[in-house]
Parts: sequence; C-alpha cells; structure tokens
Amino acid sequence: MTSKRVIELFYDVVSPYSWLGFEVMCRYRHVWNIELKLRPAFLGGVMQGSGNKPPGMVPNKFLYMSKDLNRLAEYFDVPLQTPSDPFDVMFKKGSLTAMRFIAAVQEMEKGGDKQVEQVSRELWRRIWSEDKDITEPASLAEAAMKAGLSDSEIKEVFELSTSKEIKDKLTSTTQDALDHGAFGFPLMVCHVSGKPEMFFGSDRFELMAHCIGEKWLGPQPDKSAAKL
Amino acid sequence: MTSKRVIELFYDVVSPYSWLGFEVMCRYRHVWNIELKLRPAFLGGVMQGSGNKPPGMVPNKFLYMSKDLNRLAEYFDVPLQTPSDPFDVMFKKGSLTAMRFIAAVQEMEKGGDKQVEQVSRELWRRIWSEDKDITEPASLAEAAMKAGLSDSEIKEVFELSTSKEIKDKLTSTTQDALDHGAFGFPLMVCHVSGKPEMFFGSDRFELMAHCIGEKWLGPQPDKSAAKL
Repeated sequence: MTSKRVIELFYDVVSPYSWLGFEVMCRYRHVWNIELKLRPAFLGGVMQGSGNKPPGMVPNKFLYMSKDLNRLAEYFDVPLQTPSDPFDVMFKKGSLTAMRFIAAVQEMEKGGDKQVEQVSRELWRRIWSEDKDITEPASLAEAAMKAGLSDSEIKEVFELSTSKEIKDKLTSTTQDALDHGAFGFPLMVCHVSGKPEMFFGSDRFELMAHCIGEKWLGPQPDKSAAKL
Repeated sequence: MTSKRVIELFYDVVSPYSWLGFEVMCRYRHVWNIELKLRPAFLGGVMQGSGNKPPGMVPNKFLYMSKDLNRLAEYFDVPLQTPSDPFDVMFKKGSLTAMRFIAAVQEMEKGGDKQVEQVSRELWRRIWSEDKDITEPASLAEAAMKAGLSDSEIKEVFELSTSKEIKDKLTSTTQDALDHGAFGFPLMVCHVSGKPEMFFGSDRFELMAHCIGEKWLGPQPDKSAAKL
C-alpha cells in the first residue's frame, strides 16, 4: 500500500461551487487513497489579491450560474438553493466573521477535522440552502450547535475567533491559496510526487482523478459503486 | 427507437476550450443518439453583446488556464498547444475573417457538415497547435486544402465569405447564441422535450449526459468503450 496522497481543499462558505467541491471531496476521502486537508480561507481576500471579479457581474453569466447550480445541486445531491438576494448575501454581508469562526473551530480541534467539516456544512446550509444569516453571533452559534459542538466549545470558539492568532491564521491560509495561484474557490491542491498540482472549481474532479491515478465515479461515488 | 435529440454547438476557432468541446461532440455524435448541429459563430460578438471580459485578463487565471489546457489536451487527446503570443492571436488578430470563411463553407455544403467540421479543425490546428496565422487568405486556403476542399470550392468559399449574406449569417448565428444566454464559447444547446437546455464550457459533458439521459464515457468514448 502506497502512502496517501495529500489533497488540500481551500474553500469559503460564501461560495456555492465550493460547497459542491467540499461535499465531493468529503465523499471521496473515503473512496480514494487520499488524506484530505480542509483549508478554510477567505474568498474576498483571494478576489482582491488576484484582481479577479465575481462572475455574477455579467448578467448572462449570472442567469446561467443560477441554472447551472440548480442542475448541479440535483446531480451532486447537495440541497443547494440560491438565496433571495445573492448579491446582498455574497458581496454586502460576506463571510469574514464566518470564516474566522471556522478557522477557530479548526484551531480548537487540533488536528481532527470532524467539527470543521460539520460546522462548514451547517453554515453552507444556512446561507446556500435556507436563506439564513451567517454574520450574527446567534447565527454562528446555531450552526455550531447543529454541528454538535457543546456550549462550552462554542464559547471557546467565539473567544478564539476574534483573537489576533485566528485573524492571522485566516490571512495566512488565504495567502497560501494565492501563492498556489488562486483566483477563486474551491481550489484543490494535490501533492503528486512532491509537486503541487492545482485544480480550480467543482468541475475538474474527473481530470484530477486522472492526474492522481484514481477513478472518478461521479459526484455520488457510493451511489455509483452500488450500481456497478 | 426514439427520435434523435438535437444538440447545437456554438463555437469559434479562436477559443481553445471550444476546440475541446468540438472534438468531444464530434466523437459523441457517433455514440449518443443525437443530431449534432454545428453553429460556427463569432466569439468577439458574444463577449461584446454580453458585456463579458476574457478570463485571461487576470494573471492568476491566465497562468491556471495555460496549465489547465495542457492537462486537458492530454486527457482529451487533442493536440492543443498555447501559441507563443496568445494575446496577439486572440485579441489583436482575432477570428472574424476565419469564422466568416467557415460560415461560407457551411453555406456551400448546404446541409452536410463534413467540410465545416474538417475546415474548423484545420483552423484550430493552425492557431491552437501550430502557432500559425488564420487571418490571411493564404492561411485560410491552406486550411481548406488540408480539409479536402478542391480549388474551385475554395474559390467559391472565398467569394461567398465576403458577401453580405454570409456576414449577416454569422451575425445572426452569434445573436442566436446571445439569445440563448451566451457569455462565451463553447455553448451547447440541447433540445430536451422541446425546451432548450444550455450548457457552457468543455466541463459540463457529464452533467449534460445526465440531463439528456445518455452515458458519459469520458472525453475519449472509443477508448473507454474498448476498455469496458
């Protein structure tokens, strides 16, 4: 048995395509011989650092994305629903507090990532499925509770999340993504023979599988495996 | 046997991702129960009409695209190579004359599309594989000759390609793409139960197959079929 390939996944819960990428990678960590490293980061910083503009600014692109996300949500079996005011949610309210909160969960877990996974998923569910806020403390607490964190853990996470340490950590993870050449999320960095191979978006899994010598079974590998 | 689903493919030979999409669709027209309609159009008009900007303008995106295209070229088995000066080729020289030339080939063929397919491929090969010009008459003539057109056919195509009829045809095909919501190429419009379903890019084939009830066997279906 060869050692596991490390795949880093950079994401932000403000990004719907990141949710699709995240769920696929969480499924494949049990299918492929990989070690998945969750790298919660700040998309706003990546857009600014790379000089990229959100794709939704072009009307035809925005219309297509809504349609594309609907179709992908069904095909990926992720309960994604566009919020009633996506511009407000994505560009005005943003995700800085939420991503610091997730970074703090990761810090508290020290090595494990079950809670990071669950809290991230609950925050995506709020913003990209239930059209709920993710900026208020009560919103973050509710997501953390649903993710299974205890009251004392939630208190600890809140304290951590406003510390300089965590602010710096989120900045440095975001900078790592930029250093890998990021201009958006999700971003997967596969470490193949010591060399990082970067893949952007939730539509490069088949190509990524080919590059790392694994088999792509579609976005629902358990369902595909059952059919084979 | 149910009647064939019509899939329209809008493309421009200036676009490398269109080449990948074009080759995949030309392969699958013999695998899926579809009727492929080639719709050569003008990408410059789509970018202007939709207000979209070329993705290569963001440095990190440009670097990623070069890498992405290299990996996809190998995986798709299309001999794509980035030209030495892609900005000059794509934005300064452009493809208006070439796309009018292709539109004229299509007009001359009246219903068939073997020559449109071959001429398009030869033009892509020039610009996106051999770093050769596609704007001069001699360049177009050479591509048409390689595609198997006779001297008299090439002469006819040249005459047609500068006619008002062909200029209008290219404009109207480009407008059709915009009316379908285009903001770039390749664009596939699948007619499913009388309703058009639009897919953008060379990375939505798996999803498209799912939507039209066909099976995605990867970008090289013959190779996949041989392996099964």
